[in-house]
Amino acid sequence: MSHNSFGHLFRITTWGESHGPAIGVVLDGCPPRIPLSEADIQPWLDRRRPGQSRHVTQRREPDRVRILSGVFEDDRTGGPVTTGAPISLVIDNEDARSKDYSDIRDTWRPGHADFAYDMKYGVRDYRGGGRSSARETAARVAAGAIARKVLGDGVAIRGALVQVGPRAIDYGRWDDAEIDRNDFFCPDPETAKLWEADIDAARKAGSSLGALVEVVVSGVPAGWGAPVYAKLDADLAAAMMSINAAKGVEIGAGLGAAAMTGEEAADEMRLGADGAPAFLSNNNGGVLGGISTGQDLVARFSVKPTSSIRTERRTLTRDLEETTVSTQGRHDPCVGIRAVPVGEAMAALVLADHMLLHRGQVG
Amino acid sequence: MSHNSFGHLFRITTWGESHGPAIGVVLDGCPPRIPLSEADIQPWLDRRRPGQSRHVTQRREPDRVRILSGVFEDDRTGGPVTTGAPISLVIDNEDARSKDYSDIRDTWRPGHADFAYDMKYGVRDYRGGGRSSARETAARVAAGAIARKVLGDGVAIRGALVQVGPRAIDYGRWDDAEIDRNDFFCPDPETAKLWEADIDAARKAGSSLGALVEVVVSGVPAGWGAPVYAKLDADLAAAMMSINAAKGVEIGAGLGAAAMTGEEAADEMRLGADGAPAFLSNNNGGVLGGISTGQDLVARFSVKPTSSIRTERRTLTRDLEETTVSTQGRHDPCVGIRAVPVGEAMAALVLADHMLLHRGQVG
Amino acid sequence: MSHNSFGHLFRITTWGESHGPAIGVVLDGCPPRIPLSEADIQPWLDRRRPGQSRHVTQRREPDRVRILSGVFEDDRTGGPVTTGAPISLVIDNEDARSKDYSDIRDTWRPGHADFAYDMKYGVRDYRGGGRSSARETAARVAAGAIARKVLGDGVAIRGALVQVGPRAIDYGRWDDAEIDRNDFFCPDPETAKLWEADIDAARKAGSSLGALVEVVVSGVPAGWGAPVYAKLDADLAAAMMSINAAKGVEIGAGLGAAAMTGEEAADEMRLGADGAPAFLSNNNGGVLGGISTGQDLVARFSVKPTSSIRTERRTLTRDLEETTVSTQGRHDPCVGIRAVPVGEAMAALVLADHMLLHRGQVG
Amino acid sequence: MSHNSFGHLFRITTWGESHGPAIGVVLDGCPPRIPLSEADIQPWLDRRRPGQSRHVTQRREPDRVRILSGVFEDDRTGGPVTTGAPISLVIDNEDARSKDYSDIRDTWRPGHADFAYDMKYGVRDYRGGGRSSARETAARVAAGAIARKVLGDGVAIRGALVQVGPRAIDYGRWDDAEIDRNDFFCPDPETAKLWEADIDAARKAGSSLGALVEVVVSGVPAGWGAPVYAKLDADLAAAMMSINAAKGVEIGAGLGAAAMTGEEAADEMRLGADGAPAFLSNNNGGVLGGISTGQDLVARFSVKPTSSIRTERRTLTRDLEETTVSTQGRHDPCVGIRAVPVGEAMAALVLADHMLLHRGQVG
Repeated sequence: MSHNSFGHLFRITTWGESHGPAIGVVLDGCPPRIPLSEADIQPWLDRRRPGQSRHVTQRREPDRVRILSGVFEDDRTGGPVTTGAPISLVIDNEDARSKDYSDIRDTWRPGHADFAYDMKYGVRDYRGGGRSSARETAARVAAGAIARKVLGDGVAIRGALVQVGPRAIDYGRWDDAEIDRNDFFCPDPETAKLWEADIDAARKAGSSLGALVEVVVSGVPAGWGAPVYAKLDADLAAAMMSINAAKGVEIGAGLGAAAMTGEEAADEMRLGADGAPAFLSNNNGGVLGGISTGQDLVARFSVKPTSSIRTERRTLTRDLEETTVSTQGRHDPCVGIRAVPVGEAMAALVLADHMLLHRGQVG
Repeated sequence: MSHNSFGHLFRITTWGESHGPAIGVVLDGCPPRIPLSEADIQPWLDRRRPGQSRHVTQRREPDRVRILSGVFEDDRTGGPVTTGAPISLVIDNEDARSKDYSDIRDTWRPGHADFAYDMKYGVRDYRGGGRSSARETAARVAAGAIARKVLGDGVAIRGALVQVGPRAIDYGRWDDAEIDRNDFFCPDPETAKLWEADIDAARKAGSSLGALVEVVVSGVPAGWGAPVYAKLDADLAAAMMSINAAKGVEIGAGLGAAAMTGEEAADEMRLGADGAPAFLSNNNGGVLGGISTGQDLVARFSVKPTSSIRTERRTLTRDLEETTVSTQGRHDPCVGIRAVPVGEAMAALVLADHMLLHRGQVG
Repeated sequence: MSHNSFGHLFRITTWGESHGPAIGVVLDGCPPRIPLSEADIQPWLDRRRPGQSRHVTQRREPDRVRILSGVFEDDRTGGPVTTGAPISLVIDNEDARSKDYSDIRDTWRPGHADFAYDMKYGVRDYRGGGRSSARETAARVAAGAIARKVLGDGVAIRGALVQVGPRAIDYGRWDDAEIDRNDFFCPDPETAKLWEADIDAARKAGSSLGALVEVVVSGVPAGWGAPVYAKLDADLAAAMMSINAAKGVEIGAGLGAAAMTGEEAADEMRLGADGAPAFLSNNNGGVLGGISTGQDLVARFSVKPTSSIRTERRTLTRDLEETTVSTQGRHDPCVGIRAVPVGEAMAALVLADHMLLHRGQVG
Repeated sequence: MSHNSFGHLFRITTWGESHGPAIGVVLDGCPPRIPLSEADIQPWLDRRRPGQSRHVTQRREPDRVRILSGVFEDDRTGGPVTTGAPISLVIDNEDARSKDYSDIRDTWRPGHADFAYDMKYGVRDYRGGGRSSARETAARVAAGAIARKVLGDGVAIRGALVQVGPRAIDYGRWDDAEIDRNDFFCPDPETAKLWEADIDAARKAGSSLGALVEVVVSGVPAGWGAPVYAKLDADLAAAMMSINAAKGVEIGAGLGAAAMTGEEAADEMRLGADGAPAFLSNNNGGVLGGISTGQDLVARFSVKPTSSIRTERRTLTRDLEETTVSTQGRHDPCVGIRAVPVGEAMAALVLADHMLLHRGQVG
């Protein structure tokens, strides 16, 4: 049990607050002799980095990662490789402005963790949300980059934004190549244009929008996962729900499975062109009985709209006086955008962990 | 890490197959001196027990629980109490019919775990689904009964079925008292009548229906849970997703949070009539930043329609020959009904665990 | 965290009290397709079984083990094999006599856990020591038998008694073949004869004797274990110290390493006759930096003399009145004898776990 | 499971190599609102710091600790307190000399972890022992300082060196006040003088000496710990055995319990002068059945002599060529000296963890 750790054999422990000197992660259990340098991690951090378009927070953080341990030169290749020792990654906080936080200090912001933290701990680093800030997710993305290396090129993890506010993409127009061509990780360029207007409008109105993120993983062999409580989908559900602002998670047909009949839901099997087992549909999202089937893993999670909005909201002070609060700082009008790389990272962490677990038990 | 265990401090390990001699659970970490006998557990098992109406499987299992350890007479009260030692509960399998399972043995039933287990382990107890059978959930319900005792009377856990197939209840007609008055744990008697016809039709058609279960927990104090990876909602998500046939989980506004604006989603606060903090809505389902707020916890999960249906489905044999399969055995036309007590039990287990974790860290 | 569980990937959870209806163990994480039936476990239980000579307790327990889950017929061999699901083993308590325990109920026996349990839990199953009874170790031996199957024939685990009271064996006379030829698991037949007299004398005097157990494991390849906190020797130390009445544990030169010089302690290396690395001594007991070296693993642990003796001892009642107590029941004059198979079982459990952990991380 | 983590609820994860940029530790599960700043930690690090006398390594490390997270100003006191979030501590490596390590790179030093790491991982940071260096223990001492704050002033933890090479202290001359008055943490000033000559002689001879460390903890209330596998003494044994170069651990009478009779070993009880239960001896070292009794906890562990000695030793290269090696660098002639604060820190970590575990389960 560890509140700030995730994973069984391939395990991360993250630390740090939004406005402290740095944030970081220790990754334990990584296999040895995997080539790894900062250059393998930085591109993934850059995808999540704030300040890259007007649609995300304007906080300017270079998010430069440093590897402090667990990597050393390989005597065969000369290049840096993992050694099997814990890998410590640190990212300095550089744009933590010394603004006056007195209003946040004494007031519980609606929709934020302020009230809950105060009730639990009786003390809280209120600067930028402290430990509850989405800044912690940079550490997940950094660790997720290493998980991708462990999984290897055979496993492809692609996240996308599939809904912003009430507007969903048209799945018929899905084009993987489009995802990195717009500011929203949107696979449907038509919808991306509409979102641009939607998010601009929300930002100007001092409001914010929720979103739905989908993560698809190809190349996972059949047999990863475990029955009952360490189910692959149970671990994915915990992983996604642990992301800041996530309120729901689904696998395959997900919540929609409730409306189905047995004929529709059960994925029939036939032999594929290659003579291997093939499924005729994927309502189970690549998981049966908690174990991968070899089909694409498909997970979705909702991200609620940022609670930090300019519009004035009713709330209480720590002294139980009624007041109102409105957030003037730099914030994401749609925090779901930057949740895409985070969802990918969590999927990578779950899968690398289950790859090692499977190898441990079954060989 | 333990595939068949759940929980941190208050931890269950379940074992057993559908058609083995028995199933059971070992509960470790239970606080001492809590009055406990079989009579505290049996009523909850009876709620989940098969064969109680025509809408569930006709397998006849008395599901009689025996306590084999961890309970002893209290020298002050004379009555049986927990001792702090592990509590071993066993439920015999009595109606495991010696039918011919040869078709299931060699054929992967669509929507079931058969294929995935074979890919992982290369061997599988095929009788009635073996370890992947929903029969395992009886062990959860038994342990959940003890979790309820640990939580005490101040915490009320109520599950209900809120959707069957495409037909949802009318929340405006919700009446707690109705839940135990029909065969469906349905809080809306009007909808219950319609479901009766729906499920009869599905059963007669050799089909099955999905469902949506909602679990509401009242009386949880603010402050339970933990930030980041042991979030109360992340643990609830894993708990619910680990239930057989679950495909999606949501907390509060859930998936619907994607369509909201920041004004709608953030639950504003005011002083209640009692002078205590009160929320004006509950889109966050009683959890902020992974920690309880004192509001009702609200979780929902979907249960896919039983894959065991009479209608013939296409599939493969273990020898990779194309074939069809249709299930003639005793099965639930809507397995979501019996998932209601299971969902309640999982909520109880998560909450008892977090009660102890909170006490451990914060005192 | 689980008080009654041991192991990481290959993990046991034991339950049961000395005079309850049964004791048992759930083994989770076992690799699949390992041939296993009760006949593989029973011989190891028989070695530990009470009542086999006058030198151990006269309690008559057949210690018949039943496998309740996790084993099924292999479709290739037809024989029973592990399925990868949790293996539940149960051993009934048959000779739990309905004697009057009122003196034990109200009095804290010196050297026993009575006082400590009362201070912790405020309630305790006093019959035969309840959960603190060495009867729990039957469950360890049963699980250890499965661990041996996982390790395979290449790994040989041999325990022996090397000291009883102040009298140690002569290592120069060590003969593995002798270990099972006497009542003491003694590799030195000369010393075995002397122990017979020593233990007879202690028993007749209403006293008891301590002992030292040595466990040697051959065939462990270099590379099992892990640095820092999951060191192979740290896990072995915890495993041995968790055995009832154990008070000290050593690896290789052990406590004696304190008296050595650097020249003596560091095991030099040369090429062996087979061209492979060979060590010229084994002061490190087969472990360097927490990782196996391929040499024999050598662990020793002390077992204190049974606290249950006929001689009257001073103590207190639960009501804090000064009194005396003397134990008349059936007890081991040298409980260290039966600790030999238990020490072997714990070594087997640690090694099977680290075999899987190593395979998980390194492949 | 985490190779580089220790503890259940109060849990540390350490990282870093001897000659990397830094080492560190993340402490998770710390209770909130405990006053804490670097000044609370630094004195304990200073006690362990190298270069303080000629009897320890001459590596010059200021061992300056920085707190990077988990501490914030308390709004009531204004002073820094723990927040309940993970505490990240970092200590820079400053005196990691850029010497030529080519001999260590290609040669397995006898008694060191070089061979075992190579067998396990196939790669190793050879500079100064890399991850297997005792430098890692600075992180334990830093975390142990926080554990002491959690335990509070009522719990006193005192370590001492009680044997160097074959020369043990005279327990009759034990004086706590002497421990910090000599270079050896020796409670017996007469023996300290003799050790000074012994260690000087060993150093000049290019040799090294083993040692025995004793840790005594007063003020632990009865009832901490847990039966069976999370026994307080099993956790202490793992904690002490995980320290670099430790080869044996004992509690109370320890290995010597083997030579005792039941009359000698069982600690009798009487009422103390204060009317509370009192033990007439402490052969059990403050633990019965894995649970504290309220007596002093007494643990001892041996530390083998440093394997890094000037005397030439026979060994192999990585290419399996026979060679010799002699260590010229800065090393401890008796590494057991600096193991004293490390043993104290591990005891503090185990006890803080069990304090929280006990509070969690029993309240």
